[in-house]
Amino acid sequence: MRAIVLLSGGLDSGVTLARARADGCECFALSVRYGQRHSHELEYAARLAATLGAAQHRVIDLDLAGFGGSALLGNDGVIPKDAASPGAGGIPTTYVPARNTIFLSLALAWAEVLEAGAIYLGVNAIDYSGYPDCRPEFLAAFSALASVATKAAIEGRPVEIRAPLLHSTKADIVRLGVALEFDFGLTSSCYDPGPRGAPCRRCDSCVLRARGFAEAGVLDPVAAKGEIG
Amino acid sequence: MRAIVLLSGGLDSGVTLARARADGCECFALSVRYGQRHSHELEYAARLAATLGAAQHRVIDLDLAGFGGSALLGNDGVIPKDAASPGAGGIPTTYVPARNTIFLSLALAWAEVLEAGAIYLGVNAIDYSGYPDCRPEFLAAFSALASVATKAAIEGRPVEIRAPLLHSTKADIVRLGVALEFDFGLTSSCYDPGPRGAPCRRCDSCVLRARGFAEAGVLDPVAAKGEIG
Repeated sequence: MRAIVLLSGGLDSGVTLARARADGCECFALSVRYGQRHSHELEYAARLAATLGAAQHRVIDLDLAGFGGSALLGNDGVIPKDAASPGAGGIPTTYVPARNTIFLSLALAWAEVLEAGAIYLGVNAIDYSGYPDCRPEFLAAFSALASVATKAAIEGRPVEIRAPLLHSTKADIVRLGVALEFDFGLTSSCYDPGPRGAPCRRCDSCVLRARGFAEAGVLDPVAAKGEIG
Repeated sequence: MRAIVLLSGGLDSGVTLARARADGCECFALSVRYGQRHSHELEYAARLAATLGAAQHRVIDLDLAGFGGSALLGNDGVIPKDAASPGAGGIPTTYVPARNTIFLSLALAWAEVLEAGAIYLGVNAIDYSGYPDCRPEFLAAFSALASVATKAAIEGRPVEIRAPLLHSTKADIVRLGVALEFDFGLTSSCYDPGPRGAPCRRCDSCVLRARGFAEAGVLDPVAAKGEIG
């Protein structure tokens, strides 16, 4: 079966691609250059797609920075550091309005053209930043939408939305990666990396990642090689 | 109240913008350059937005032609002409996969940033081409999605999806335009216009438009000035 895999270049989407491949899917990776400060992640996405044997990797340009509304967009925002507890203090300023709705919509379009049976995405509602579009309610609503939105769906060929990491802790995700022989060194999670791509170790995304590797008792090759920011 | 209005430059979206203005909204018009063959419609959208006093008109670039899958995208497709009955013979090849899902997702993002209370779109499920994403089921599903997808929604400020033309015939839309003193000459509906923008009069969109004006007993200034294709 063909599957679209939303691929950011981070840990979760990388393990999700490995999961889709292990599920026997022919994988079509989709990334979006949306004005993210950390657009270096797209180079990681390209390497991940190539290394894990994706049939194709497509990068869509879409200027969400023009809308604004997120610390993750453009060059003006300040990435919060050293949050007492990521995800516990409300939705952080790194939230990007409607991002996953937009990404899933683009995946839905490509899935219909390719006659793909599934869309994989690496969202996670346990060790996460509290983004509304990473929750089970959101995914259920998007699945319901997908079941009526396309010609393929109303002709009896709906696409399945698969979020295999949704209920996993970050440590679970690391363990799944180990089980799938996934190379964590191919991923980048930092929202605010240094000039040579070194993780800052202090943004929500770095903190959640480090905690997951620590809890799983696995060495993170990215943290090991990186410089202290 | 602020409102996002999806504006293609056609008859339906133009009348929808007039409706939103008549409803007292401060209108932010959103158009998408998605690789449509009939991208001349974007010039009409710009004129509509300016003439009808939109607070802003934003045109988003998004390459859906790269996905393919529609006669309306790129330069390879053939626009069907002289269909026996538009909309009656299944979904035509001018269907663009997931187009309204994508457009509404983009509108949802901008709405959240602007703290807009509504998104208007000119879809119509009576005199239409049978596209799945113009049906009431689709809009209900997108509304349900919007109610869980954003920070604004889960904080109690959901955006309302308004499709004021959903249950109107094309003749009703023309009559509404007349009542709102809308200038139909500002719109372009043709999928395959001639070099100077003259409507072809034979694509589904032209046929539906002509039928609507005829039934309403109103002269279409666009057809009156256009050349026979």
